Amino acid sequence: MTARATTGADSAAAVAARVIFIGAGPGAADLITVRGSRLLAQAQVVLFDALTDPALQVLAPQAQWLDVGKRGFAHATGQAQINALLVDAAQCHSGLVVRLKGGDPSVFGRLEEEMAALQTAGIAYEVVPGVTAALAAAAAAQRPLTRRGHGRSVSLTTAMTHLGTLQATRTADTEVFYMAGRQLGALSTKLLQAGWPGDAPVLVLSRAGWPDALASQHQVATLAQAEAAHAGRPAVVTVGAGAGPLQAANGAVDSDKTLAIDRPPHGTDDGPA
Amino acid sequence: MTARATTGADSAAAVAARVIFIGAGPGAADLITVRGSRLLAQAQVVLFDALTDPALQVLAPQAQWLDVGKRGFAHATGQAQINALLVDAAQCHSGLVVRLKGGDPSVFGRLEEEMAALQTAGIAYEVVPGVTAALAAAAAAQRPLTRRGHGRSVSLTTAMTHLGTLQATRTADTEVFYMAGRQLGALSTKLLQAGWPGDAPVLVLSRAGWPDALASQHQVATLAQAEAAHAGRPAVVTVGAGAGPLQAANGAVDSDKTLAIDRPPHGTDDGPA
Repeated sequence: MTARATTGADSAAAVAARVIFIGAGPGAADLITVRGSRLLAQAQVVLFDALTDPALQVLAPQAQWLDVGKRGFAHATGQAQINALLVDAAQCHSGLVVRLKGGDPSVFGRLEEEMAALQTAGIAYEVVPGVTAALAAAAAAQRPLTRRGHGRSVSLTTAMTHLGTLQATRTADTEVFYMAGRQLGALSTKLLQAGWPGDAPVLVLSRAGWPDALASQHQVATLAQAEAAHAGRPAVVTVGAGAGPLQAANGAVDSDKTLAIDRPPHGTDDGPA
Repeated sequence: MTARATTGADSAAAVAARVIFIGAGPGAADLITVRGSRLLAQAQVVLFDALTDPALQVLAPQAQWLDVGKRGFAHATGQAQINALLVDAAQCHSGLVVRLKGGDPSVFGRLEEEMAALQTAGIAYEVVPGVTAALAAAAAAQRPLTRRGHGRSVSLTTAMTHLGTLQATRTADTEVFYMAGRQLGALSTKLLQAGWPGDAPVLVLSRAGWPDALASQHQVATLAQAEAAHAGRPAVVTVGAGAGPLQAANGAVDSDKTLAIDRPPHGTDDGPA
């Protein structure tokens, strides 16, 4: 290793790998950044989560892939184990260790805990950002999160706190709730309590970024109706200005309620000949 | 063109191109997604903004590149012209027309207006998401936007309204202000008025994603001091939990106040041999 990868590290870390946190984006493997994909191709070890698209492994066939996936908020022990695995991987290798995270590492990615563990061990790291689920959901549904004149702020939040209680707020023009798919009926109640009108638009998008992404349009008061269609699928719930249908150029509103996301897959095989 | 690219279009649009909005990410060209880069390589025409990295043009040397860049909020006429140029490009070509936007198209990208213009003209479109500036800033500064226990919500907003007034709020644990670099002193005042404590942490990150990105750490009350260092550079301002230094694994706080972003450039030439 060169000195620059271990700047500020102690002697134990002088032989350690460089660690790079990479955001894989949500869903399909081609939503990773070019930078992320190039660094993956150089990795000696990749620690990844269960939610990440297995097709990403094609980008780094040379690497040892370690599944450190967990789900939900209740696994404090799980996070400590991941921290230890990450430090171990860095100390046992001299090349590039990638910590691959779904979406963007800085948003609901437990990045602080893993950075702190590396820092304590004197191991240098970098972060490569990724597309977070809210952005992929907006793209898939063709519903911009900001709207000129009435949608100037976007909030990204989890409906579930780390203590396991469901919360909802009305603080931004558009609010996006992560990991909310399992309790849409309860979320509806909390949104009404937070002051959202019953007829405020809600968009539920499950498996954003995947070929089988599903979008459905609702209102705050009727959000419970979305539960069946999205059962068992990771979902993002968008409420408010950014969830509404497109305001057409002539002032009319695009009134379709069913959103088909059945476009052909993207990629080099999909373009004009 | 095949029928699938013109589904729902009228006869005038039956010969029109397919339009794809692509988020270029902020700054360096390698922060575009793999999907975006592959589609760019198929483009016949690319309409791009001034802020986009010129190095992206290497990804689509076959395409006609049209600069439709503008800055600031005052150019309603400019936006109408962009809408017209986009519709014209789609109607005059039979291949792929890419509308390349800095960051993510769904966040402060005027996406709704351009979609509406295409819809009115009967032209089909898709959206490929990108890394928005808040995420790139967090990655560059190694400051996660969410923090376990005290940073559960992130707000993305513009300090400037479309009417040209400066606003600030305190509604989320972490608030990220886009396009705020020119009025940091005034923003400090507005943040205090909105209820932020004078000693709440603020991170200013200009040219996020570029090799010459610059980060500086401040407090709400002293934010005006950041103006000189970031003058004339597009900046993102992060306030609150996500702006604070890393909480180390042992409970201590990483106390460095100067943030050096002088890491070597990323990419295939940068890895271990």
